[in-house]
Amino acid sequence: MGRRYDNISFLSDYGSDDEFVGIVKAVLGDLAPHARVIDLSHGVPPFDVRAGSLALARCIPYVPSGVVLAVVDPGVGTARRAVAVEVAGGEGVLVGPDNGLLAPAVALAGGAERAVELTNSSLHLDAPGATFAGRDVFAPAAAHLCNGLDLAELGDEVDPGLLLPGVIPLPREERGELVAEVLWVDRYGNCQLNVSPDDLPPLAATDRVRLTLVDALGHERVRSAMVVGAFGDLGTAELGVVVDSFGLLAICLDRSSAAAELGLAAGDRVVLGPAGDAPARTVASPVRLRSRADDDAALA
Amino acid sequence: MGRRYDNISFLSDYGSDDEFVGIVKAVLGDLAPHARVIDLSHGVPPFDVRAGSLALARCIPYVPSGVVLAVVDPGVGTARRAVAVEVAGGEGVLVGPDNGLLAPAVALAGGAERAVELTNSSLHLDAPGATFAGRDVFAPAAAHLCNGLDLAELGDEVDPGLLLPGVIPLPREERGELVAEVLWVDRYGNCQLNVSPDDLPPLAATDRVRLTLVDALGHERVRSAMVVGAFGDLGTAELGVVVDSFGLLAICLDRSSAAAELGLAAGDRVVLGPAGDAPARTVASPVRLRSRADDDAALA
Amino acid sequence: MGRRYDNISFLSDYGSDDEFVGIVKAVLGDLAPHARVIDLSHGVPPFDVRAGSLALARCIPYVPSGVVLAVVDPGVGTARRAVAVEVAGGEGVLVGPDNGLLAPAVALAGGAERAVELTNSSLHLDAPGATFAGRDVFAPAAAHLCNGLDLAELGDEVDPGLLLPGVIPLPREERGELVAEVLWVDRYGNCQLNVSPDDLPPLAATDRVRLTLVDALGHERVRSAMVVGAFGDLGTAELGVVVDSFGLLAICLDRSSAAAELGLAAGDRVVLGPAGDAPARTVASPVRLRSRADDDAALA
Repeated sequence: MGRRYDNISFLSDYGSDDEFVGIVKAVLGDLAPHARVIDLSHGVPPFDVRAGSLALARCIPYVPSGVVLAVVDPGVGTARRAVAVEVAGGEGVLVGPDNGLLAPAVALAGGAERAVELTNSSLHLDAPGATFAGRDVFAPAAAHLCNGLDLAELGDEVDPGLLLPGVIPLPREERGELVAEVLWVDRYGNCQLNVSPDDLPPLAATDRVRLTLVDALGHERVRSAMVVGAFGDLGTAELGVVVDSFGLLAICLDRSSAAAELGLAAGDRVVLGPAGDAPARTVASPVRLRSRADDDAALA
Repeated sequence: MGRRYDNISFLSDYGSDDEFVGIVKAVLGDLAPHARVIDLSHGVPPFDVRAGSLALARCIPYVPSGVVLAVVDPGVGTARRAVAVEVAGGEGVLVGPDNGLLAPAVALAGGAERAVELTNSSLHLDAPGATFAGRDVFAPAAAHLCNGLDLAELGDEVDPGLLLPGVIPLPREERGELVAEVLWVDRYGNCQLNVSPDDLPPLAATDRVRLTLVDALGHERVRSAMVVGAFGDLGTAELGVVVDSFGLLAICLDRSSAAAELGLAAGDRVVLGPAGDAPARTVASPVRLRSRADDDAALA
Repeated sequence: MGRRYDNISFLSDYGSDDEFVGIVKAVLGDLAPHARVIDLSHGVPPFDVRAGSLALARCIPYVPSGVVLAVVDPGVGTARRAVAVEVAGGEGVLVGPDNGLLAPAVALAGGAERAVELTNSSLHLDAPGATFAGRDVFAPAAAHLCNGLDLAELGDEVDPGLLLPGVIPLPREERGELVAEVLWVDRYGNCQLNVSPDDLPPLAATDRVRLTLVDALGHERVRSAMVVGAFGDLGTAELGVVVDSFGLLAICLDRSSAAAELGLAAGDRVVLGPAGDAPARTVASPVRLRSRADDDAALA
């Protein structure tokens, strides 16, 4: 027997319109009634493994000991492996598809120590179709782990070094500027970048940065942003850059959506440089530097 | 005293923007602190009893022993009855309005064995208005059942045969084809049909089916779809039909929404037949067989 | 040591797309594993302290004994105070920002008896940025209260009389009519007004009221509404006013959204008077009393 767990922290792209989350929790509640399920998030955009992996990485430092169940699984039912990965001397086991979703969280937890593929089908739920592994494969594995089943009973051992890595883009220096990327736009419209304050030595002494926003067609817009410690330190419609709660830089406005104001989305490129004479203040209906038709083309 | 229950599986059309779900769970937590609430789904479209009954039916095989609380109740406060229905030798009790919402789940659980109308108003919460029976009538009933109150104490006995039946459309054969209906469009855009693989003997040997999509004005579009076991077996933009996790056929695309691509919604008619030379591949902007104006008219 | 609590009722504007709620619950589960978290609502519109305070007030009569954690906190990281407020002889403690969010709930619970500012930073989580007080300040305070830490240990005492009050608009009489305001539009499109039946003595004997809807530009539309006890008492497309489940008047339609039909939103002005010959029945595409251009201007 393995160690018993009391917590199942659960993240998925199942959303809240359907009963996917509810059915998985029904299965967990049936098989491991003692375990508490903590819903980390089910709002990962459909099929978006990268967004799911980043959300899971933001959660992992706060998750209590136990099982982490993560399902963003567009390849469900194909040859992609279903896995369970033990970390931190058995303090935690991550269960999910081996498609990169778990990788950043596993790395943050100190790396994979043991891993198995969930090949022991006697533990799976019988199902008429193969499209809901969260219910039929992953949830039973999570529940049995909570009940004390050893990882090795779930299936064939896998070399932890052969698990699919995650892909988190790194910022790069170019001509004295930092070429970054929007990792995440949150509900408030804050745009988290793949940049930590340590990446910005030349800017540390200043209170402003220059942002060059690059759209899919390569069009550029330039803005100046104030470096602040809190959203409320900004004036109305004044663009800011804050060190967010995960230690990364985020572009923000006070009580308003920077993403909506600037038209930014996850994956967009942002170049950070020393502040020049870029416009410091956005307006509710900003002056457009190019025609509406260009805009539409850029979005197509 | 009746049997005690530890689980309350809860489905509603309350959504997640308001505090309806939270207040019901506060009442449950206050009256039956030992019971665990499993949220099956609260994303049923407002007032949509049929969609709620189908979601509940998809959940019911996975729900643990206990009380099922289901509230999609446009007739709240009128003469429609509030009921509790015992199934499976007391393994479960379903609580909700007698408007067809519970019927398919009750049938799947083996049929109603005992039923009462929730007429014992001494168990209801006092309320200034009659618009929130989930809080005032159904939640207290669910909680008291968990605490061991016998079903008979909740109110007057009702003949289980007189509960309102649910209406699930059956497919029908017509000129060698199967006239079906979209039961459900899920978050990923998969369109579940009211068709099981057993309904399709002439197609079992083939790997393609012909789909005729019929809109509200009777306009028809024809597509060919590949029969696959997993979404990932499809090529990019290739239309598929999969046996889904509930054992029904679903129209799908790989990592993309078939409903958005084809303009399908719950209730739409789809005719399945042997594959001919219908177009097998959809495109991001499909060739339209009729004018845009026709399209708009069809949506009006 | 203080009293131990078993329930944490949690309301926020964190939404369901991100992992904010999940991380707070992970922290709570880690620090106070015995406590049950009841999610009241996380669908408060971003930054909307007033909407959050009203939702919390609607919940508070139903919340079980314990801690109430409420976070709608646009001023996070600035000089606004983080507080814990004891009510009802210690039956409950409300934890959140001192920005008016807690005030109506505190008043409904009998008023603040003790209050502290959460200045004991040894209880806070270390964090790289100051933008997520829900995780770093409020959740630990709630968890420690559940574990029996006395309120006084959380920080400096605050005069309860100096907590920021909430602002709930009162209706006013004007020329024999009642000038009211939409407090809340719920998922079903019901428009709750800041009017209780007691505010309407001259209308009590009638079965109809006259509604004058006033938009942001001062344009007025007049409708007649039937006073009903349940949505289902209305005919199709017939406008109604119901005493809702919180004891306030709400403008409604049967199985349809009054807010969408009438273009109403929270904060809009509605004047109630004796029914005259105002149109009693709305239609799906109502006759417009002014040009479409005027409408657009009103929305701009």
